[in-house]
Amino acid sequence: MSHKIITISREYGSGGRYIGECVAKKLGIPYYDSFIMEKIAEETGFVKEFVAQIAEYAPSKSIFSYAFVGRNTAGESVEDYVQKVQRKIIIDLANQGPCVIVGRCADYILSDRHDCLNVFIRGNTEEKKQRLIEFHDVKPENAEKLMRDTDKKRSINYKYYTGRSWGAYTNYTLMLNSTDIGVEKCVDIIADLYDE
Amino acid sequence: MSHKIITISREYGSGGRYIGECVAKKLGIPYYDSFIMEKIAEETGFVKEFVAQIAEYAPSKSIFSYAFVGRNTAGESVEDYVQKVQRKIIIDLANQGPCVIVGRCADYILSDRHDCLNVFIRGNTEEKKQRLIEFHDVKPENAEKLMRDTDKKRSINYKYYTGRSWGAYTNYTLMLNSTDIGVEKCVDIIADLYDE
Repeated sequence: MSHKIITISREYGSGGRYIGECVAKKLGIPYYDSFIMEKIAEETGFVKEFVAQIAEYAPSKSIFSYAFVGRNTAGESVEDYVQKVQRKIIIDLANQGPCVIVGRCADYILSDRHDCLNVFIRGNTEEKKQRLIEFHDVKPENAEKLMRDTDKKRSINYKYYTGRSWGAYTNYTLMLNSTDIGVEKCVDIIADLYDE
Repeated sequence: MSHKIITISREYGSGGRYIGECVAKKLGIPYYDSFIMEKIAEETGFVKEFVAQIAEYAPSKSIFSYAFVGRNTAGESVEDYVQKVQRKIIIDLANQGPCVIVGRCADYILSDRHDCLNVFIRGNTEEKKQRLIEFHDVKPENAEKLMRDTDKKRSINYKYYTGRSWGAYTNYTLMLNSTDIGVEKCVDIIADLYDE
C-alpha cells in the first residue's frame, strides 16, 4: 500500500515529535507542526499562543474558559472554529504532496485518503520523564503529572473531534515503543515504510 | 534493549500466526503454538482438543459449560488449572532460550523478563475475511461473525487472566497492521528487532 503522508500521534515525552522531524529530514519531505499554528493564526487573526492552546487541547474543561473563549457570529464556538480551520489547512497541506504531520487528529482528518501511514509513538514512564526533564526544562517533581495531564487533554481533544479513542490500535498502521525500540530505529522503520 | 523472546498477539484473520512462524524460521529459533497444547495435554492428561478450547478461550460464558468443566480436588476450576499449567510451560520454554510464542497471554506471563519483544498484529476487516475464507475454509457468510466472536473470546480470556485489556497499546512493544504493511514486511520488521 502506498504511504505518502505520515501522521504521528504520540504520548507526551515519548520523543514522537523528534522522530517525526527526523523521518521528514531523512526522506526530504516537509514536516508540519508549528507551521500549522502559524497558518491558523494567519487565517483566523488570533495570536499563535492562543491557537496553540486550543488547537490540540480543546475543548476547555472549565465553564470559565468556555465562556471566555466565546462564540463567533456564525454561532460557532471559537474552539470549534479553530479546529475547522486546522482541518482545512491539514487537508490542503496533504493535497500539496508527501509530508509528516504531528498530532492534531491528522490521522482522522485524512482518513478518506488511502496513502497515509498512521503512527502512534509511546514510551516507558521513566524514560519519558527523563526526556521532559532533559529537553523540555520540566522540573523532576512536575514531570509525571504534566505527562498525565497532557496525554489526558490530547485524549479528550481526540475523542471530542473524532469520536474515536486516542491510542486505540484500530486507528493506526503501526505503534512503536520508542524506549524499547530506540528513537533511531523508530525513524528507520517509519522511513522504510514510506511509499511502500 | 535486548529482545530474545518474541510474543505475538493477533486479531483473528490478521495473519499473526503465520507471521510468527515466518519470523521464527527466518531467525532459526523455535516457534511455539500447538507444541504448548501438546505439553499441557501431556501434563494434565486432558485431550488436546479440550485443552485447545480452554487454553485460549477460558473462561466459558455459559453456566452449563462452567458446570461441565468442573473443579479439581484442589477446589480449582479445570479452566484455571489448565491456565496455570500453560503459564508454567511458557515460563519454562522462555527460560530454555530465544523463541516465538503466539497468543496465550504470553506477553503478560513473561512480563517480569526484560528481553521480550511484544507484538500485536491487526488487519483490515475485508482482508482478514478473505484470509479466513482462503486459508481456513470458513464460509464467506460466517467469516465476519467468526472473526468478531473469536476476538471477543480472546479479549475476555486476556482480561480474566491478566487484568489488562487485550489490544491496549501499553501492553506491546510494537503493533503492526498486516494489511497496510504487508505480511513479508511485518516479518522483516519483527525479525530485525530481535536481539537489538
